[in-house]
Amino acid sequence: MTAVLEVFGHGGDLVTAAERFGVEVGQFVDFSANINPLGPPARVLEGLREVLPRVVHYPDPGHRSFRSALAAKLNLPASWLLPTNGAAEAMALAILALKPQTVGIVTPCFSEYAQLSRQFGARVLTCPGREDRGFKPDEAELYRLFEQADLVFVGSPNNPTGLLYEPEELLRMAGWTDRTDTHLVIDEAFLDFVAEERQFTLADQLSRFPRVLVMRSLTKMFAIPGLRLGYAVAVPALIERLREKQVSWSVNSLALAAGELCLEEADYEAKTRRLIAKERSYLSGAIAQELGWRVWPGEANFLLVRCPAQITAAELQELLGRRGILIRSCAMYPGLTPGDFRIAVRTRPENDRLLTALRDVWRERRERR
Amino acid sequence: MTAVLEVFGHGGDLVTAAERFGVEVGQFVDFSANINPLGPPARVLEGLREVLPRVVHYPDPGHRSFRSALAAKLNLPASWLLPTNGAAEAMALAILALKPQTVGIVTPCFSEYAQLSRQFGARVLTCPGREDRGFKPDEAELYRLFEQADLVFVGSPNNPTGLLYEPEELLRMAGWTDRTDTHLVIDEAFLDFVAEERQFTLADQLSRFPRVLVMRSLTKMFAIPGLRLGYAVAVPALIERLREKQVSWSVNSLALAAGELCLEEADYEAKTRRLIAKERSYLSGAIAQELGWRVWPGEANFLLVRCPAQITAAELQELLGRRGILIRSCAMYPGLTPGDFRIAVRTRPENDRLLTALRDVWRERRERR
Repeated sequence: MTAVLEVFGHGGDLVTAAERFGVEVGQFVDFSANINPLGPPARVLEGLREVLPRVVHYPDPGHRSFRSALAAKLNLPASWLLPTNGAAEAMALAILALKPQTVGIVTPCFSEYAQLSRQFGARVLTCPGREDRGFKPDEAELYRLFEQADLVFVGSPNNPTGLLYEPEELLRMAGWTDRTDTHLVIDEAFLDFVAEERQFTLADQLSRFPRVLVMRSLTKMFAIPGLRLGYAVAVPALIERLREKQVSWSVNSLALAAGELCLEEADYEAKTRRLIAKERSYLSGAIAQELGWRVWPGEANFLLVRCPAQITAAELQELLGRRGILIRSCAMYPGLTPGDFRIAVRTRPENDRLLTALRDVWRERRERR
Repeated sequence: MTAVLEVFGHGGDLVTAAERFGVEVGQFVDFSANINPLGPPARVLEGLREVLPRVVHYPDPGHRSFRSALAAKLNLPASWLLPTNGAAEAMALAILALKPQTVGIVTPCFSEYAQLSRQFGARVLTCPGREDRGFKPDEAELYRLFEQADLVFVGSPNNPTGLLYEPEELLRMAGWTDRTDTHLVIDEAFLDFVAEERQFTLADQLSRFPRVLVMRSLTKMFAIPGLRLGYAVAVPALIERLREKQVSWSVNSLALAAGELCLEEADYEAKTRRLIAKERSYLSGAIAQELGWRVWPGEANFLLVRCPAQITAAELQELLGRRGILIRSCAMYPGLTPGDFRIAVRTRPENDRLLTALRDVWRERRERR
């Protein structure tokens, strides 16, 4: 399965898309990266403009100002937190610090779990998510993964399926870690988008689980993926092990400044969650009912869709790309099929543009046959 | 030896300085970090302001636009280059990719060579620079270091001594690498500041040396250390090994954008080199002649100074810090003494402010005795 746009293994690669479709980078509507469609909060962009001249100084290697603002917001001591150069660096540091020989993943999932594991010398063990259960694995098989692996990655909500684990399921997994002597990384990069009443995280219960790390991202909710900012939460002894592997100044000073500004945007988060809940249901309904395609009931700001056998995700990506619309083919995910693709949930006009394009492409395809 | 300001092992830590001296971060004249005193070029700051909204997209994981602009400027194929999250990431990637069991360094030198080596599990072997030779090591001892170590770091010009190796010395070291089966990292982070007639690099001769890597930084000359941007140069097979260890999107999009803008600033570089040459000689002359303190004949944008026994670098740092002037104590460098400190070369008014403060502090100290 050769990726057309995912040559670096991910969505959001506008440079490749621009080369492929002859459309300028700024002209795409990008459903291939899962970023808040409202863009960065205006106050964050303005604030960044003001602090821009600060790039003349080194970033604070201790991330002190951002870290203590984050600690205040999460109501956790600063020693439980490590700011990172995107959530990807947090994952890399976990592998470098904990040196797992085997890493367990539940497929399909974010490709970096396996990529980073192999990059730093670990063998990857997989536990298949069950398609008929929204890609949730069988519990017995999941437990076996914990028994066999030194470190397990679990995304919640999981990318690209949107699967959100129940709090009691996460607690059960966290509880296994002592018995099986396994480290568990819960990747909550997309939890910000989950409607408030379902918002839950293990971050405030980690004192009971010295082998569990929670990883978060600020770049998705606040639409600043170009800046790179994530963080890890764990008991101080575990955070210290990750910190020992972090390269000096790896988090740049604009990311740290933006992070502080983002923490003040609670209203923006609430507004975004409302928008995403409404638009996710709109998009999902239209695709399922009008096109008759299968849509999984994701809980994040993206949806996993399967198109019928008459067209593949790769073809769909090509046809939409020429119209300036980018989607993420999921054909290369272990456990998924050539018809599977992922779309971000965006604003109503953008979602309508996607739906119109999908209808057109689909009509043309059926007429051709 | 307890560091007062260098709690993270480096100069330029304004947050610690602000806490210590009760002076606001923006109010210091910072001689403790070796950054172009002219600040970022105006066109770079303006350009950054314009591209700021681009943070809504992921950075190009292939760094394609910056990488090809850099390739054009260096007259090298893009496959010989790897953009990195500061030169520190390039060094970390070399260690992660080449997995040396032993790393050789010439003391005193940039603390990250040893720090990163230990961080990623290598043992550090040292070869002492000879104080009477401007901290250049004996050649026989240096060769022994190459025989014993799997990877050797050499700074040229070296931090904190300012020692610049002659081209034939670097070529000789590069020539040893095949015989001794050693990788050599030449850290040229400060070479940009060396006067043009002495500008030399091994970057364009690496086809003969498949075990040699050159590392450069854009953040010192262009005064953007907060953004993080460096790069490695080596034969493509070696670059590919480093790239395999790089975490996705580790170089943020503003750093990549700034990098492209910086490559167009050749006049700014020339102007800076003239300023640094003139001011280095002015500062060095004043300290040696008026104060009678020892100054090493460095070739970069900083100077290593030794004060007399009546005062230590730590005391000097404290007394100057209260006046809003930061210097880098070098007391903790292996091979240096409690009286050694490093100062960046800055503009004439700033250098005069430093000289006045040094004279005052020194007069007070002598009167007290």
